[in-house]
Order: sequence, then structure tokens, then C-alpha cells
Amino acid sequence: MFDNEKFQQLLSDLKQLKSENLFGKDFLLTWEKSIDDLKTVIQVSQILRFLRNNNYSVKAFDSGLAISIFRDKSTRTRFSFTSASDLLGLQVIDFDEKKTQITHGETVRETMNMISFMTEVIGIRDDMFLGYGHQYMLDVAKALDDGYANGVLPQRPSIVNLQCDLDHPTQAMADLQHLVNYFGGFDQLKGKKIVMSWAYSPSYAKPLSVPQGIIGLMSRFGMDITLAYPEGYDLVPEIVEMAKANAQRTGGNFRIVHSMEEAFKDADVVYPKSWAPFHIMQERTKLLKAGDQKGLDELEKQALAENAKHKDWTTTDKLMQLTKEGKALYMHCLPADITGVSCEHGEVDADVFERYRIPTYVQASYKPYIIAAMILTSKFGNMPAVVEQIVNRNRKRVLF
Amino acid sequence: MFDNEKFQQLLSDLKQLKSENLFGKDFLLTWEKSIDDLKTVIQVSQILRFLRNNNYSVKAFDSGLAISIFRDKSTRTRFSFTSASDLLGLQVIDFDEKKTQITHGETVRETMNMISFMTEVIGIRDDMFLGYGHQYMLDVAKALDDGYANGVLPQRPSIVNLQCDLDHPTQAMADLQHLVNYFGGFDQLKGKKIVMSWAYSPSYAKPLSVPQGIIGLMSRFGMDITLAYPEGYDLVPEIVEMAKANAQRTGGNFRIVHSMEEAFKDADVVYPKSWAPFHIMQERTKLLKAGDQKGLDELEKQALAENAKHKDWTTTDKLMQLTKEGKALYMHCLPADITGVSCEHGEVDADVFERYRIPTYVQASYKPYIIAAMILTSKFGNMPAVVEQIVNRNRKRVLF
Amino acid sequence: MFDNEKFQQLLSDLKQLKSENLFGKDFLLTWEKSIDDLKTVIQVSQILRFLRNNNYSVKAFDSGLAISIFRDKSTRTRFSFTSASDLLGLQVIDFDEKKTQITHGETVRETMNMISFMTEVIGIRDDMFLGYGHQYMLDVAKALDDGYANGVLPQRPSIVNLQCDLDHPTQAMADLQHLVNYFGGFDQLKGKKIVMSWAYSPSYAKPLSVPQGIIGLMSRFGMDITLAYPEGYDLVPEIVEMAKANAQRTGGNFRIVHSMEEAFKDADVVYPKSWAPFHIMQERTKLLKAGDQKGLDELEKQALAENAKHKDWTTTDKLMQLTKEGKALYMHCLPADITGVSCEHGEVDADVFERYRIPTYVQASYKPYIIAAMILTSKFGNMPAVVEQIVNRNRKRVLF
Repeated sequence: MFDNEKFQQLLSDLKQLKSENLFGKDFLLTWEKSIDDLKTVIQVSQILRFLRNNNYSVKAFDSGLAISIFRDKSTRTRFSFTSASDLLGLQVIDFDEKKTQITHGETVRETMNMISFMTEVIGIRDDMFLGYGHQYMLDVAKALDDGYANGVLPQRPSIVNLQCDLDHPTQAMADLQHLVNYFGGFDQLKGKKIVMSWAYSPSYAKPLSVPQGIIGLMSRFGMDITLAYPEGYDLVPEIVEMAKANAQRTGGNFRIVHSMEEAFKDADVVYPKSWAPFHIMQERTKLLKAGDQKGLDELEKQALAENAKHKDWTTTDKLMQLTKEGKALYMHCLPADITGVSCEHGEVDADVFERYRIPTYVQASYKPYIIAAMILTSKFGNMPAVVEQIVNRNRKRVLF
Repeated sequence: MFDNEKFQQLLSDLKQLKSENLFGKDFLLTWEKSIDDLKTVIQVSQILRFLRNNNYSVKAFDSGLAISIFRDKSTRTRFSFTSASDLLGLQVIDFDEKKTQITHGETVRETMNMISFMTEVIGIRDDMFLGYGHQYMLDVAKALDDGYANGVLPQRPSIVNLQCDLDHPTQAMADLQHLVNYFGGFDQLKGKKIVMSWAYSPSYAKPLSVPQGIIGLMSRFGMDITLAYPEGYDLVPEIVEMAKANAQRTGGNFRIVHSMEEAFKDADVVYPKSWAPFHIMQERTKLLKAGDQKGLDELEKQALAENAKHKDWTTTDKLMQLTKEGKALYMHCLPADITGVSCEHGEVDADVFERYRIPTYVQASYKPYIIAAMILTSKFGNMPAVVEQIVNRNRKRVLF
Repeated sequence: MFDNEKFQQLLSDLKQLKSENLFGKDFLLTWEKSIDDLKTVIQVSQILRFLRNNNYSVKAFDSGLAISIFRDKSTRTRFSFTSASDLLGLQVIDFDEKKTQITHGETVRETMNMISFMTEVIGIRDDMFLGYGHQYMLDVAKALDDGYANGVLPQRPSIVNLQCDLDHPTQAMADLQHLVNYFGGFDQLKGKKIVMSWAYSPSYAKPLSVPQGIIGLMSRFGMDITLAYPEGYDLVPEIVEMAKANAQRTGGNFRIVHSMEEAFKDADVVYPKSWAPFHIMQERTKLLKAGDQKGLDELEKQALAENAKHKDWTTTDKLMQLTKEGKALYMHCLPADITGVSCEHGEVDADVFERYRIPTYVQASYKPYIIAAMILTSKFGNMPAVVEQIVNRNRKRVLF
């Protein structure tokens, strides 16, 4: 059953990487990480998946908490984080701001120490407002550094960004693992054409973190990136600039077009997904700060009206035919707005989605392993040694 | 301390049963299961209880999730499911539909895969509307089959029905275990007279799943069943027909009467409990589907008025005196509507309930073991071997 | 790394204590416990902390539930209870009264049995109304006794009071551990001057349990206690009387003053914290019982107006200079109302709080260990033997 040759290959590939830089660090933005860091997380994720599938228990803790903080609704990320934490031996507790005394003037600095005395990891989703999510995570990190440095915390919990206003690294990394497996290795990514395209959705204020995460990460590996959207639906400019620079440095390519047809032509991979325009998100943040509900309602109406002009930005079979040999890989972070299924007009036609449904589920299936790898690499410095210990101790996950 | 003779008897009884049909199957309705399936679950439940009471850890997983989905309020079933899952080594996470993106048009097919990448069991309560609960579980099962067959899920989570519109198998099976222990074995059930009786409650729209579960299950073991209710308070006709046929086939008996006095005469066991009439539940489902709140309010008023005509359907000491030697076993799934305690007029007089209070608690105490047995038998094919492994590995639950 | 000499000292100190009286008992009020009981909990807490910091797993259960019941919001106690339970191997489940059928007339007696079939500990916070919280815990205890005596429950879950109307023992005991470590031993507490002072807060109806817990506990160890508050802000008289009697018996001192300046003079420790006057809490309970919302609103207005007269009861640097050598230990159970930070005027000036911020975090850090010690001592009779087993089995918490 156990394919030792495959395992030795996975381990040997891991040993090629300089993995110790992840140790003791949070995982907040992929662009703060080195190529070896990113490859290490992917490789550890592959190994954890391989070992679990071979009934090795990869438990790393005999006790300890994993805290999730969701400032927005979540299904798949919530369950991925729980799965990953449980896999490593941690009990998950949700930090529900409604059940706490936060509103009574408690500060982030204090609260984060109060909940972390026996905590190994904190997963945070805060993606609602531009300029807030990433900053919140930095505030939490600072609080934890302070508590750890002052001897309040016996361990420094690692933070895993479960989506912020800038990046969605657990998604982008799971997507990268999907691409690596699809194309057969990191070295196969170079020059492959991936299209990150806006698509129409009947909803409003979808975060920018997925498209930004994709262009920010895939540009690191020499991919040929096309970012496509209707005029006005820009992303955060600094991240677009960064992606351009990455592409240039890695021998990839980066261009922006305003036509799905043009974008899809000869694509190896397409990732059509809705998002809100950057300027709308900025305006929205301002209005929210001012507590201007009337202004917000007005903005939503405007934005939906603007969206409605672009109903033709939808993934049809005809469009898919334009891709390389008509069979580019379709990706989506899910849930997709599927025309005639979850809404009248959406991001993708039902027949296209149905054809790629299972691949999108497989794409999602990497996320628990990516999160587990992020936790593990932040907690242990010598990954090859950890992997060897897991195999040598021969502890089973399913016990009978 | 450890009664090895008793253990050997339990194990030897288990070995008599053909238990492998439960492997890889969901537990949705008792009437889909063979007699050996049902006896196996009871027997494994007995063994798990015996082993836990002797401080054996019966943990079967070193990691893995158990998901609960409660579409109705629940105390005892929630805690029973959590206890059972924890006993086997699984971390429980509640799938709270309010915290998810389900409302954004996500399908059951997709969501169930998204939450199941590391999930061993999903417990579902969906008992509110006739024609929906069981169907929902079938939809979930189909989604999981699809994901497993397509390589999305590395394991197929088992579904345990924690109450649907048709059956309440964890309750009925716990009740069966109670009866087996009370009478001293499965072979002692044959011919024993059990009364499943309607009783008055000041509330409305109580599910039919408990009485249906009881007549559907106890008729399999040759019991002499009397179903008693005021005219009009019928159950789902197909299930009544099935219970009749079961009774005929197993040498038992099945009759319907419309008088508690008549029903209680010479009974060995009485189970007086309120439910809503089938036709009211049908009407209610129709109105709910149509979103007709006015109609629903009207229906509730009607139903409560109809109920109020039957306040005399209550379990009094006088009634209990009619049973065999005046000391039939009183059963209830709890919480009971107790006259003068939890309501003005209810299902049972306070003095009767108090006399049988502890036995009803004991009855309830089997549920965690039944659920654990359902999970275990769905996950492992060779139950006697599993039990022997548990004893041989000699892992303690309480470690000091 | 492992300081065996220190460990042997901790163990030998534990062995001096008669610890078996805690076995099989709930921890509801510190004043029901003997001095040896209290010292044992502190000592076990110290040992658990020492062992965890040296990467020993102190897990005591291979499975089992810990139930939390919070009838008031909570952050730090919720996480402390979860941390402690997880540390010992228990899975935590919150008993959320909104998700249960409690409202349908179920009794405490019944519910507590229903949730406890596999439960090792129940932590309860019920601090909102005078005369209710402690009584509720006694009711739960009685229900569990009944179920255990009648063979319904295979183990008697221990109750840990996570704050009631009378005492806040997990807080007071953590505070005591802080003092023991600060002064260098129990024998150093005698004669040390501690000030439990009222302080102004812009909120209303803060529970009395913290000041009562402090004077009730610290008076057991011969401390020189000053209770300071504006006239009218009395605590529950019986507890004040008890503290007086304790002080007399242990060679300590107890006095009440109505001036912060007077109180702070030469203090070794100050604990300035807001609370509601006893008579207001009594009135409030009466109005709540009567469902008199108008009366409650009126009372709140009155109470806040009364509070506002005492804005000068705040912890300033000038006040701190009055303490012994100007450097008394400042304590707070957190979160503090900090002037200019969490409110306009509050319990403490920002510069004072900032100076003692880390010590207050350290003070809080003992709570998970105190709770774990309360659980452990209630579950196992021979603590030294348990501690020796933990070290001898050499199970690691962090596995790599």
C-alpha cells in the first residue's frame, strides 16, 4: 500500500528547500515569503496529504488550542481551519466577538493575550473593509509579540491569515498546489497562461483578496498572467504593480485587458470570479467609518447598477472554446454564482461549471493541508526531521 | 473489577451476528436495516458501555471531525452526539447554517463536500417538515457518494440520522436497548405488550418521528403493539402499514385503539407522548412552502383547539393501575410535559412521572452509546475484531 | 533544561498538604475549603504550569466532555476554562441555553443529567443576580448527585464555579497564586497590606463577586486587608463579617475605610475595581423578578448618577505614591476601565495601568492552571501520585 518510493521523492524534494525561515513567523501575505518558503508550504501540504491518505497520524500536539476569528461568514475556510487544527492535535475554539466583553472597551492588545495562554495558532478572516483586515492582523501579531517577549505567553501563537483585504493566502496557496499537481511540478508553471478575470455577479462588495492573491502569487513562478476586467474594476494598484514586477523578474508576463474574449484566447487556466471595484471599496470604507447608512445604500444601488452593465462577463462554453485546445483548466474558489442554478445571471454557465465541478472540489480539497502546513512550518524549524519522525513513530490515524 | 465472564458473553453474542452489512452505510431508518444489523448496533452499544464503565478507552480515531447539523433545537441529542463522537476520538464542529454562505446560493451537493475533507461522520436533525427531513439526508448522502467516488473525499463520512420527519432511530434504538436490558434479552421481547399512546400537550406540531420510530422498530421483534390516539391523530399511513406487516411476519401483534384505558390494559410497557396529526403536518408543510404566515397562525390555533379537546389523554396513576400488575414500564423520550410541573395540563401526572423518573433517565443514557455504535459499525467491518483490539491494546480512558 | 531540583521542591511541598478532601467535591466557594485544600489547588496549579512549560503533557483523560455554561458574556474565563479542559484531555462543549429545549419547561434536574452521561466537569458562570448564581450551582450539584447515586451517570461531573453572585473563586485563586509568587510563598503573605478598593466606572451593576472573593480568600492567610469604598457601596454583609472573623482568627487585620487615600497608605498591594452597591443589586433583583422594566431603567439612571458623584475614586499615580515605597503591586481582574483609553473617566489612569499592564497579564495567566488544578483535584484523590505518574510516563505535549 505505502508507496515508499513516492514518499522518498517527496521527502527528498523537501530537503532541497530552505524551510527554516517560516519557523516562528506568521503567514499573512504570500508576497512576504521567499520562493523557498512558498515551495516548502506546498511540499509539506503534499506530504501531509500523502501521509494522511496512508493512515499516518500527523498529530503534532498532545494538547493546545487553535482559535478562529471570523469577522465575516465562512463555510469552507472555517471547516478547513478546523480540519487542519484537529489533524495536528489542536482543539478549535471560535472567538465570537458577540459573546465577549470586547465591546466594553477591551483592547486587541489585551484580549489577544488573554485568549492565548495555551494557544498554538490563531486563524483570522477580516476581509470586509479595505485598509483594515491586514492591519488588524498586524495589531494581533504585535500584541502576541509583546505578550511573548514579556513572559506572559509561554508560546507565541502563529497567525494564519484566513483572508484579509489584501490577500487570501490559504486560497491562493491551495490554488497553487492544484496547479502544481495539474501541470506536474513547479517547473512546469513557467510560461503557462493563466487568466484572472472579473465575472458578473448579482451581489456587491465581494472582496478583492482572491484576484489579488492569485496575481500576487502566480507571478512569482513565471506564469503568463492576464488580468481581465471591465474598465473601472481595478484592484489595489500597489499589488498590481508588484505582480508586474514579479512577472518581469521571473521571466513571466503580466498584462491587463478589458475583454474576456481577448483574455481567454489560448489560456491554459482561467479563473473567472466577481469582485468589487477598488474605488467602490474605498468609498464604502469611508462611508462605513462615517456611519453613513444612507450613503451606503446609495453606493450599493450604484454599484449594482454598474455591475448590471457587465452581465456579458460570464463564462460560457463559447468562451471556453477560445482557450488552448478548448480545454483550459477552469478554477474557482467557490461558491460560484452559477447562471440558472444559484442566480438568474452569474459568473459561469451551468454547463461549464458542471464540466469542471469535480476539479473545483479537488482545488478546494487542498486548503486543509495548506493550513496544516502553514501551522506546522511556523511551529517547527526542521521540516524534514519532523516528517521523518512522523513516519518513524508509525502512529495511525484510524486505529483499527 | 473487570468481569471477564460477562465480557466474553457480550463478545460471543456479537460474534453470532452478521454485522458487516452496516459497514460503509448510513444509519437513516431502522426499517432499512436487517435484524442482525439492529442487534449488532445494540450489542456494540452494550459493549462500548461495558468497556467505558471498566475504564477502557474505545477511541477509534487519532484525529477526524464529526459534524452536527441541527435544523431544530436540541439538548440531549446534541450532547449525545458530541459524547459519542468524542468517545471515538473525533472533534465535533457544529455546522451552523447562519454562519455559512449557504444562503448565497450554495448547493447541498457542494457544501457537503466542502466540509467533509477530513470528516468521519455527519449527524443530522431535520424533523420540522413532513417530506423534507429524510429527503435532505438522502441528498447529503448522494453528495458524499459523488465526492467520494470522484476522489474528492479521502473517506466517505457516515450519516447518522439524529431525527427526521419519518424516524428517530437513535431514540428508538436507545429505547430498544432499554427494553432488552429491562426484559433480559431480545428473545424476551416477543409477545410483550407495548403501548405507544398519544398524550395531550399544550404545544403544537410535535414531530411524528418518535411514535413512528417505536412502532417501526418494536414490530420487528415480535412485540404486541398497541397504537393509541384520538381519532384524527394518525401517523404516516405507510409506516403504520409497515408496522402491521412486521408484526404479522414476526408473530407479534399490531392494533390501533382510540382509548387510553383500553390501550393500557395489561400493558408491559407504556410510551405516552404527544404528536401532531399527520394531516396537520401535511397542511403545515404546504403553508410553509407557500410562505402563508396567516394560514400557519390559523392552523396553529385550530390544532391547539383540537388538542384541547383531548386533555383527558394524560397518564394518571389510575391508568397505570390498569397495566400488568399495575406496574408497566413507563417510557418517554424526554422532556415530558408534566402536569403541574412544566405546564398546567400535560402528558403525564407529576406523581407518575416522578415514580419513573430515574428509569426515563436510564433510557436516555443509552443514546450516546447507540450513536457511537452506529458510527463504529459504519466505519469498521469486523466488529468482533475491533472489540478484541480495544481490550487487547488496554488503553485507559481515565489515565490516573 | 528540566530543573529537577525545583520539581522535587514543588512535589515535596505538595506532599506536606492534606489534599484528598478536594476529591469528589465541587469548587463553588473558597470559604467552604480548608487551608490545605486551597494550598493544594495553588500548588497543583504551580506544578501543572511548571510541567507544561517543560513540555510534559499533563493529559488525564483519553476522552470526556467539559461543559461550559455562561449565563453572562465572558472572554478570559471562557478561554481559561477551555484551555484547562483541553490541557487535561477533555473536549469542551458550550451549553447554550438558546439552542436547547430548556425553555420548553425542562427542569435543571433533568437537563443536567441529560448532558452529563460522559461529562467530567461543568463550569458555570452565573453572576447576574444576587441570590441566584450560587443557588443555581447548588441545584445543578443536587441534580448530579441524584443522577450519580441512582446509577444514571457513570461518573459525577465536578462543578467549577466560574463566577457567581457571591464568589469568583477561579479569579481569587489565580490572584492568590500571583501573590504567592510575588511575595515568595504562602508564609510571606501574613501581615502584607492589601487594599480592595472600589473605583469609579461609567457602567452599572458590576458584580460583587470579585471584591467578595478577594476579602473572603486573602483573609484566610493572615493578610492585612483594607476594604475601601464610598459610603453606600457595601458588599454582602455576611461575607464582610466572615472576612473580619477570618482576619481575627489568622492574626491578620480587616478594616473598612471610605477614602482611597487613607486606604492606599503603605499598602503592599492595591486592587481598585468598580462594583455595584449591595442594596442596588438587591433592588435590581427584585425588579427583574417582577419584570418591571421601567423600574429597572429608573434604577440604572439613579445608580449611574450616584456613581458619577465618585469620579474621584480613580487610581492615579499620586495615589500610588502613597503606597509602600510608592511601589505597591497593582492588581486587576481585567478588563479595567482605563481613563482616556476605554472610557473618558474610569478606574485607573492610563499611565498607572500601563506601568502594571504586564503584571496584570501575568496575574490572569494563572487562571487556566487554577481551573485545571480544580478539575484534577476533584477527580483524583492522590495528587502527589498523579504528579509522579505525569513525570514518569514522560508524555510530551509538543510532539516534535
